[in-house]
Amino acid sequence: VDENDRASTYSPPPEKETEMSTEPRTAPGGDGRGVRVHAQQARAAVPALGRADSTAIDHALQTMANRIERQQRALAAANDADVRAATEAGMQPALLDRLRLDEARLAAMSAQLRSLAEVPRLDAVVDRQEVGGGLWVEERRRPVGVIGANFEARPNVVVDVASQLLKSRNTGVLRTGSAAIGSATALLDHVIAPALVAADLPPDAIQLVRTPGHEAARDLVRHPDVLPLVILRGSGASTRELAELAARHGVRTLAHADGGAVIYVDASADLATALRLVEESVDRFGVCNRLNLLLVAAQRWDEWLPEILATLERLDIAASLPPHDHPLGYEWALDEARERTVTIAPNESAREAALTVNGTTSGLAACIVAEDPPAIDDFLDVCDATGTFVNATPRLLDGFKLFKVPETGINVDRVPGPRGPVTFRDLHLRQFVVRA
Amino acid sequence: VDENDRASTYSPPPEKETEMSTEPRTAPGGDGRGVRVHAQQARAAVPALGRADSTAIDHALQTMANRIERQQRALAAANDADVRAATEAGMQPALLDRLRLDEARLAAMSAQLRSLAEVPRLDAVVDRQEVGGGLWVEERRRPVGVIGANFEARPNVVVDVASQLLKSRNTGVLRTGSAAIGSATALLDHVIAPALVAADLPPDAIQLVRTPGHEAARDLVRHPDVLPLVILRGSGASTRELAELAARHGVRTLAHADGGAVIYVDASADLATALRLVEESVDRFGVCNRLNLLLVAAQRWDEWLPEILATLERLDIAASLPPHDHPLGYEWALDEARERTVTIAPNESAREAALTVNGTTSGLAACIVAEDPPAIDDFLDVCDATGTFVNATPRLLDGFKLFKVPETGINVDRVPGPRGPVTFRDLHLRQFVVRA
Repeated sequence: VDENDRASTYSPPPEKETEMSTEPRTAPGGDGRGVRVHAQQARAAVPALGRADSTAIDHALQTMANRIERQQRALAAANDADVRAATEAGMQPALLDRLRLDEARLAAMSAQLRSLAEVPRLDAVVDRQEVGGGLWVEERRRPVGVIGANFEARPNVVVDVASQLLKSRNTGVLRTGSAAIGSATALLDHVIAPALVAADLPPDAIQLVRTPGHEAARDLVRHPDVLPLVILRGSGASTRELAELAARHGVRTLAHADGGAVIYVDASADLATALRLVEESVDRFGVCNRLNLLLVAAQRWDEWLPEILATLERLDIAASLPPHDHPLGYEWALDEARERTVTIAPNESAREAALTVNGTTSGLAACIVAEDPPAIDDFLDVCDATGTFVNATPRLLDGFKLFKVPETGINVDRVPGPRGPVTFRDLHLRQFVVRA
Repeated sequence: VDENDRASTYSPPPEKETEMSTEPRTAPGGDGRGVRVHAQQARAAVPALGRADSTAIDHALQTMANRIERQQRALAAANDADVRAATEAGMQPALLDRLRLDEARLAAMSAQLRSLAEVPRLDAVVDRQEVGGGLWVEERRRPVGVIGANFEARPNVVVDVASQLLKSRNTGVLRTGSAAIGSATALLDHVIAPALVAADLPPDAIQLVRTPGHEAARDLVRHPDVLPLVILRGSGASTRELAELAARHGVRTLAHADGGAVIYVDASADLATALRLVEESVDRFGVCNRLNLLLVAAQRWDEWLPEILATLERLDIAASLPPHDHPLGYEWALDEARERTVTIAPNESAREAALTVNGTTSGLAACIVAEDPPAIDDFLDVCDATGTFVNATPRLLDGFKLFKVPETGINVDRVPGPRGPVTFRDLHLRQFVVRA
């Protein structure tokens, strides 16, 4: 869960009007190239990237880090122009902040690139066993090929996603929110493409859609033959719409349109632990894995509710108590005016709480606070959440926090494959190689 | 690749007319229950199945094996009625054969069930690592929940699929070709449901759609909220249509509509090995992983073509030589009148051959015949086929042949997740559990 991804779901950014228009692909500021052309150019780079050894890939990542430092002036100029235009268009301060590439953010980007370059490559061969008759079968990881990625107007995500694609030997077509196109273009032209060339890799491996407008995002999820997989960062209505459009076209996405973490306080819980976890889970309100629904063991409801309410009051958080005038899983993070709200409800048992998680939420993240091992086992038996937490905050549902590598996104599909926090380590195809 | 799956794609089975009609759900022979009702009943059995220990599951599988033997008379009666009706309706002999549950087939079903019962369960915990601060993260396998499965009028597949779902702790909604509904119902009522009850498992875990007609198959892929994943066995036009319909509704499928194996004979090949592999790869013609396209190193074309043609002629197989009047990947297995055909074309190198595989075929299976390690490496670098074979026949692309467990199907998606031969071991969701 990237902390910032949700921001743009609170209120439409200024680009929204542009996004809804039916402007031609050759809009001012664009280069007129459609997604299909980009995907074909990226595809031409697939074999070279697949062949690249780790030295070349990691050299490209390190060169990107160096160039971010050396090209600071050019990047700042492009970003200043984006920020100026967005300010004039009336962009909200929170979104403007995400658009800005200040020194600290550039330094963080460089540091993350250097750190990713240090991560060892996954073995191409996952498993090897004898078939019999002198034959061996290997399970292998292969790059997917070309992967699409859509994200909001945050220039640093250009480098974040590009680096993860390169680390997994995939090429990509990136599309950013329109307000960041100038900054994204500068990052492509001054950082990413030259770093690829310096590492003797094809600069076409990372493509940026330079045409503003939301229609480009829609175009990203309509070409299953050349872009079978698209990462949709962020959540909310825009992601939901793109995920549905992708599904209709047979394009797979890694995404979560909905979030909202659940904490269940079991009758066996240590109340102090429960109150600490509640507080740790509302350190931010706009993020998908914040506490949204607090379930309390019914037999402790009268005893514990006052202390829970006192804690929420101290944190300036409203409690929505039964009877609720909204669905139990209603996601407050998406309700700008009331995001500082937590729904509270009684549940009879750990099992009932897990069924509540499965039945009324997106299944992103859920936590049980309990000291009683059978209650914990019951919860784990039933709970389907992509991340399930035992006496730990669901705010930990994040690829970087759990695995120390950047996160591609979080996927909530209920099908086999990458689910929960997705990292570059997941961006591969399974292949079996049989050798005589 | 199940040898028999392709049979029904050669010519429309008699049920086809019924399948295309818009008959109501309460058609004669059906029980009027739609897929959604079945999925909800299966869903209610999910928690009990998820909790079941291996003893109970394997006991159910063994009881199924025993009951197939003990209920042979009831099964034969139901099957005789299906076969009689299909014969009267003019079903082709090849399809009639697949519909028939004779003693040998029943014995094979029992043996397979007993063998699957012996296979150890996969560990629920895949990996465990320290997050820091006293926290641990576990990667776990969870059952998917309810899985749909569609297959042609072959009663033994009812037990095959049901046993794989149970072994992976999934519940399921099964739909068979209409001609087999009587036999399938007998297997459900006399074998599967009583075996579940005997093992103290919910009999509702395995549901059978008892309404005839192809509309039921379409209904199976239209409910992403209750049936997010559907296995489509077999290939050809009907699978392609269902896979596309599923995609439009946001339902994931494990399927391959298209097949056709490729063999590339490199300049470094041992010709005798190549000719042997060609012959081994055309032992059947209606299967998806049979030799469809034979690529020959251009520099050996003149030298080797006569011997290759002689081999094919001996096997009574036609060669389609350049210039071709069809796409290079044209699948002869789907062309009933000309299935005994192999396309032959020259390619300059192992790399070019692998690009031909990627660009002109479904990417199901490909083989390189070569003695030269760099040529083999080149081929493996580029070839995306779900199964890639080095001096071994692509006819080995089959879950049972490679892994000694029944095959759920073969999946050709170009996205992360189960790909190539899928077995019960793949039918799980990834979940992360974080414990303090």
